[in-house]
Amino acid sequence: MSSSIPDTALQLRSLVKESGHLELSLQEVPVPKPGDGDILIKVEATPINPSDLGLLVGAADLSTLKKSGTDKQPVLTADIPKPAMRAMKARVGQSLAVGNEGAGTVVAAGSSDAAQALLGKKVTGLGGEFYGEYRLLNVAQVMQLPDDASARDGASCFVNPLTALSMPETMRMEGHKALIHTAAASNLGQMLNKICIADGVDLVNIVRKPEQEKILRDLGAKYIVNSSSDSFMEDLIKALAETKATIAFDAIGGGPLAGQILMAMEAAASMGSEFSRYGSADPKQVYIYGRLDLSPTMIPPGVGMAWNAGGYLLTYFLQKIGSEGREKLRKRVMDELKTTFASHYTDEISLQQALDPETLQNYNAKRTGEKFLINPTL
Amino acid sequence: MSSSIPDTALQLRSLVKESGHLELSLQEVPVPKPGDGDILIKVEATPINPSDLGLLVGAADLSTLKKSGTDKQPVLTADIPKPAMRAMKARVGQSLAVGNEGAGTVVAAGSSDAAQALLGKKVTGLGGEFYGEYRLLNVAQVMQLPDDASARDGASCFVNPLTALSMPETMRMEGHKALIHTAAASNLGQMLNKICIADGVDLVNIVRKPEQEKILRDLGAKYIVNSSSDSFMEDLIKALAETKATIAFDAIGGGPLAGQILMAMEAAASMGSEFSRYGSADPKQVYIYGRLDLSPTMIPPGVGMAWNAGGYLLTYFLQKIGSEGREKLRKRVMDELKTTFASHYTDEISLQQALDPETLQNYNAKRTGEKFLINPTL
Repeated sequence: MSSSIPDTALQLRSLVKESGHLELSLQEVPVPKPGDGDILIKVEATPINPSDLGLLVGAADLSTLKKSGTDKQPVLTADIPKPAMRAMKARVGQSLAVGNEGAGTVVAAGSSDAAQALLGKKVTGLGGEFYGEYRLLNVAQVMQLPDDASARDGASCFVNPLTALSMPETMRMEGHKALIHTAAASNLGQMLNKICIADGVDLVNIVRKPEQEKILRDLGAKYIVNSSSDSFMEDLIKALAETKATIAFDAIGGGPLAGQILMAMEAAASMGSEFSRYGSADPKQVYIYGRLDLSPTMIPPGVGMAWNAGGYLLTYFLQKIGSEGREKLRKRVMDELKTTFASHYTDEISLQQALDPETLQNYNAKRTGEKFLINPTL
Repeated sequence: MSSSIPDTALQLRSLVKESGHLELSLQEVPVPKPGDGDILIKVEATPINPSDLGLLVGAADLSTLKKSGTDKQPVLTADIPKPAMRAMKARVGQSLAVGNEGAGTVVAAGSSDAAQALLGKKVTGLGGEFYGEYRLLNVAQVMQLPDDASARDGASCFVNPLTALSMPETMRMEGHKALIHTAAASNLGQMLNKICIADGVDLVNIVRKPEQEKILRDLGAKYIVNSSSDSFMEDLIKALAETKATIAFDAIGGGPLAGQILMAMEAAASMGSEFSRYGSADPKQVYIYGRLDLSPTMIPPGVGMAWNAGGYLLTYFLQKIGSEGREKLRKRVMDELKTTFASHYTDEISLQQALDPETLQNYNAKRTGEKFLINPTL
């Protein structure tokens, strides 16, 4: 190992205390030594995805944020409302590392050929615990970046690109003809539009603001409906009748939207056909893969009987398609890293800035199109 | 055909008008002549199931009920609230016959041996349009009743018994270990308890009143939790942890209950295991087979990612298991008609009484344990 690697380094930790408090801190932790098949990554870029925020801040009340500690090792605390503590029960007292994915330079490697081959190279990895100065992973958990790609280019290679690719794959595997996507102007939504246009898959985009419609129109999206419009349900039913889309991926989760999509699917499926008292028998699926809205998902009557709503997790999908399927998707991500799968970041921040109350409020707002990158070398 | 069969007879009809009104009436309709494989049943007993009420009254506002017509052919009208008219769109202007199942005497039969063999016999059938004096069906849609069974005994042979039997079958087919059922003291719930006790399947019963707990305790039910109790969530989690039940059949549909069941499944699955940020990976299913509560189904965060909620329809299940599977279940219903599958009726009413405003309010209230039978010969 290179002599420039320290014995300890900073790592961001999230701790829920028995007392009903969340504590975020930067801990000094030992830098691990690689086993034969491992590499040690000096992390240079790691994105803050909505899926990271669940672990990082969960249901804490951010209006109660308090800062303490030092400049180098700040500590943030916040109250957790009583009802939310039940869902947190399993993690009470455990100091958890955060950060699903990230990229950086391989600064140490185990003795295996595969590990040695990556020494000094830029890689991108998936595996949690990326919000820190170093991350040890097995070579199977990383991909080498193309020579012309920076760590910033390659920081978001897994969560968004693979989730976007998994949507048309799931659509085909489950026998549907077209897709629906919500919060559709997000980074992920933009990737999905590029994929669907390239692959000839009809995609109905649901957004809530005119500027989001414009982003997608500029990308070449054909079906865009605005949930804030008075004619939303009519517009949605029309788009679903045209595309025959019967599977939706919903990033909002809470509120009426998932139910409205199922009602529109049912209305579109029943159009022009004879009245059936139980509604259309075509399977109608809404997968909830995010919870930008933490209120309950509401599904009204009027959705027929052949409806289905459920949680969606990339990990389960990747397990289902096997290693060959995974390899195919990963290759496409690397091939189209700077086009289809380019991510745009609102701001690049240090580990310490990630624990600044105002900055945290900003990235936790999850505004469409906004995405923050942590650079632990800053 | 026997000369005692009239050319026309009364049939109950439900009509949604463009004007936003529901009209229930008794129409004089031609009595159909049997084809080779058909039989004509003089209907003597036909139950009012919750699944019939959706077609009969739908979302009409019953506080606006008005009676007109004659004693023999009363007419009821009610307003349908504007938002509910969208869901009704496909049936506007169609006069629909009602009544999923029923029993009676075969008074005419087609020329086939199978049809002739049933002449004069008591049969029970499934196929809609039973709320009338006569019903024509193909022999494949009926079962002959045992000699000692009356039409009343055999009126409810399909919907409740087959739905109850389908629950442990679905549990096994989808790889679950134990069952959860709501509105569990219902006629169907009582059947399900008898089935599960006989078959050695653990069943967690959810009720909301002490007298319903008693009904089930007297039947020998082991797991009974009361959703009105302050300790409901704790009680439910404990029962799910003990039974490992991860599939629920919910007759309530609306409100928080389906979400509470999924939360309790998640809490039970996470007990004693290491914290996983996405929760337990075991599939957790709630099937909504009724909508006693017409408000939206609410599913909060805190249910993990491996959750699923969907509509459940007996018809789809029966299609899935094929004719051999269906035959097996039907045979069990006939064998246990007066024990496991005995139905208890609150009141027996005529077709005309079914269109009495007060009586309609009563049977539409769907109180647990209450069930009405229409006898068109009264």
